[in-house]
Amino acid sequence: MPSYSDYVTTMQRIADIRAASAVLQWDQETYLPPKGAHFRGRQLSTLSEIAHEEFCSDSIGALLDGLLAAGTLDDAQRRNVELSLEDYQKARKYSASLVRRLSDAGNNAFHSWMEARRRNDFRLFAPALTEMVALKKEEASVLGYTAHPYDALLNEYEKGATTAQLDAVFGALLPQLRGLLDELLAQPAADDSFLRQHYPADTQWQWGLHLLRALGFDGEAGRQDRSEHPFSTSFSPQDVRITTRIDEADFANMTWSTIHELGHALYEQGLPPEQYGLPLGEAASLSIHESQSRLWENNVGRSPAFWEYWLPQLRTYFPGQLAAVDGERFFRGINKVQPSLIRTEADEVTYHFHVYIRYTLEKALLDGSLQVADVPGYWKENYRKWLGVTPPDDKSGALQDVHWSHGSFGYFPTYSLGSLYAAQFYAAAAAALPGLEDDLRQGRTERLLDWLRREVHQHGRRYTSDGLCRRITAQSLSSAYFIDYVRQKYGLT
Amino acid sequence: MPSYSDYVTTMQRIADIRAASAVLQWDQETYLPPKGAHFRGRQLSTLSEIAHEEFCSDSIGALLDGLLAAGTLDDAQRRNVELSLEDYQKARKYSASLVRRLSDAGNNAFHSWMEARRRNDFRLFAPALTEMVALKKEEASVLGYTAHPYDALLNEYEKGATTAQLDAVFGALLPQLRGLLDELLAQPAADDSFLRQHYPADTQWQWGLHLLRALGFDGEAGRQDRSEHPFSTSFSPQDVRITTRIDEADFANMTWSTIHELGHALYEQGLPPEQYGLPLGEAASLSIHESQSRLWENNVGRSPAFWEYWLPQLRTYFPGQLAAVDGERFFRGINKVQPSLIRTEADEVTYHFHVYIRYTLEKALLDGSLQVADVPGYWKENYRKWLGVTPPDDKSGALQDVHWSHGSFGYFPTYSLGSLYAAQFYAAAAAALPGLEDDLRQGRTERLLDWLRREVHQHGRRYTSDGLCRRITAQSLSSAYFIDYVRQKYGLT
Repeated sequence: MPSYSDYVTTMQRIADIRAASAVLQWDQETYLPPKGAHFRGRQLSTLSEIAHEEFCSDSIGALLDGLLAAGTLDDAQRRNVELSLEDYQKARKYSASLVRRLSDAGNNAFHSWMEARRRNDFRLFAPALTEMVALKKEEASVLGYTAHPYDALLNEYEKGATTAQLDAVFGALLPQLRGLLDELLAQPAADDSFLRQHYPADTQWQWGLHLLRALGFDGEAGRQDRSEHPFSTSFSPQDVRITTRIDEADFANMTWSTIHELGHALYEQGLPPEQYGLPLGEAASLSIHESQSRLWENNVGRSPAFWEYWLPQLRTYFPGQLAAVDGERFFRGINKVQPSLIRTEADEVTYHFHVYIRYTLEKALLDGSLQVADVPGYWKENYRKWLGVTPPDDKSGALQDVHWSHGSFGYFPTYSLGSLYAAQFYAAAAAALPGLEDDLRQGRTERLLDWLRREVHQHGRRYTSDGLCRRITAQSLSSAYFIDYVRQKYGLT
Repeated sequence: MPSYSDYVTTMQRIADIRAASAVLQWDQETYLPPKGAHFRGRQLSTLSEIAHEEFCSDSIGALLDGLLAAGTLDDAQRRNVELSLEDYQKARKYSASLVRRLSDAGNNAFHSWMEARRRNDFRLFAPALTEMVALKKEEASVLGYTAHPYDALLNEYEKGATTAQLDAVFGALLPQLRGLLDELLAQPAADDSFLRQHYPADTQWQWGLHLLRALGFDGEAGRQDRSEHPFSTSFSPQDVRITTRIDEADFANMTWSTIHELGHALYEQGLPPEQYGLPLGEAASLSIHESQSRLWENNVGRSPAFWEYWLPQLRTYFPGQLAAVDGERFFRGINKVQPSLIRTEADEVTYHFHVYIRYTLEKALLDGSLQVADVPGYWKENYRKWLGVTPPDDKSGALQDVHWSHGSFGYFPTYSLGSLYAAQFYAAAAAALPGLEDDLRQGRTERLLDWLRREVHQHGRRYTSDGLCRRITAQSLSSAYFIDYVRQKYGLT
């Protein structure tokens, strides 16, 4: 007779292996000496293999089925076991061979991508990408789908998402955004030159730590380090790591990426520790994770109320650079809208076009209507069409993102979904918390964090993205909130 | 029909799990946020459990037996498989229950020890230590022994070592050392006050890195970080980590611990990468490991020839502190002999008394002739007897070392053996490399490192400690080399 505590023990053991993987990956991005890469690669592959083997064992299936059949679980327990069973059934579809081929292809593609970027030549990446696309098609058919192979891959990152749903979301969003963008570009351009003075690295680092602590990051249950690409990761709710990158010639880079990663970290630190290793101890989905990072980065961290408090603080760190920059100029500068080539540097309005181009491109690769060799052409054509800019080379074009080299097809759309959820959740928070803007003006974010903890963080994976959205906002995702937010920010009527 | 490559695959997978453990431990000592300790503890336990389960599986025994029976292995392959079989037979003696109880007792004892240290009261550590001693007795009987239970535990750290052998080593060494010590204490005391000026941390850090690189540490295949207690660890020969501690009021602390850890790291970086995960890719033993750290720290790093080159370099880092300190005063200061209470701060001569006291104490706990409650009394009595000093409290007495809280009984003697091997190996190097001292005077250590690579590092575990010693020096371990070395250093006839 299987017991719930057998289930907990089994799942937590697998969680320990995955956490160990996460530590090794964190170390790889932060401190690994160059020659260590080879053996680190195999250590990571071994840990993935073991976690996969242990999770896919027949005994776990029997345990999960037995627990659900016994009918002795309370609601939270039942939800955990149901979600584990879903995960289990999905994981069992992957043969050991497919897991290994995906892992090997990922290693190979990553190195090809690095080399292609270095030599600024997409053709060097094309063979590895072709192999990866073929594998992802195989993966999609193993996972199964009805309408479009991409649906199967989307599910990796956003359970229940379909191309039909995403087409509808972007179909509602982009025409309106394009209209707003035209209005904004007809206005005089904002001056953001003050962001690109010399900002010494040490002072930026101190400023970032100050901000993190003040906004609720528990420094006893996490830390910040430096890496080439900022990211967040978690080994338990009591050990959440974020990283940042400092560019002395660009102040914006570090500050908003720090606030972005903070949003992810607050979510992880807010997950219930007693559910460690179980679905209710995990984030709801990637899009909900991204809603938390975007909410802090943009809805809070690019608002005039927030900077009413923080700009005077910031001036104490950089008096020379910012003495002459008043609140209005600062606000306009940090929210400057301008079509550009690089996704990670895009403003909030044009960002979604970057995502949409990648989304349609991935779909077309998956259904065979686009060949890998034609990716750079597709890229240029669509950047011209949607944003009116043309990449001069592959590095600022189709080679700019790491995602495909990892085999992450279906990941990009969660960035847009996250922004839309952020706007919708923030509107709900503002309605639930009268005086929220006054809080920000006084440098107070405790009530907001408390609300997010209660409404989002503490539930883990109990609700789907849509279920959580309906619970919090009484409706499914709607891009109207994001459009309203943009209109209000830029004073458009 | 089992193949050697099955063996390699199996062993390397286990090595990957152990390397992952080592990364998690390294992180625990360097960067882990305080609240992360709880989940990190269980992640480490899970990895140990998995490594133990995988290594102890019946299939590995069959594989090893099959390979040896087939008779198709070359010499190096046969040695690997034989050593793995020894390890396997030993590991199989540990039941899962004993492994878990040792691990739990270690966690418990470590926290008790920390608390006892904080409150400076051995009695707070006594219950946990009593439990640990009982478990170690059980472990000794599970492992088996003929003469003394301590022999079984010694084997954990130094294969083949026995109390009879150690009694003989110390029996030869200590009376002579005691005589030397009396001679040295009759001389005027050296002045080492220049070591305890203010040495800024950043400059010490830069100095340490300079020294590491100049002495052959491959910074592309390893790194240095800070931790409370300096240590070295390795995740592969291409990723070897060392840590240091910086005390601004005590220059000696960081410099010689850096050179000590460098010695360990050079050994690990010199192991053959193609033997990763196999016995021939591992260090010969703890005492041989310690011979490498001691050789660099003392035989090289406290020699007048070495500082003839390095003191002028060091003065460029600390001109104010060292302008008035000439070579003679520096040499005498860094080699000052003085009986003291703390093992890790002891000079080369008195060091062995610290080790011997712990060795006899551990033996007595294991055979029941000493009870845990009587440890502080035994400690005081023996420190007075051998060194003429009496600890005023438990922190500077029986609570000073972490080893027992980890269950490491039998570890201390390897420190003394390491020093003795270092002296014997260094004498062999000097004989094999005419002009070695001139090398040091010119800041050149490449020939010495090359010799150590060839004579020690590249062989991994191919030879036992004794086999290696006889191969290099044409005789077994003899304390005569260490005594000669001390006589020569201090100008005693």
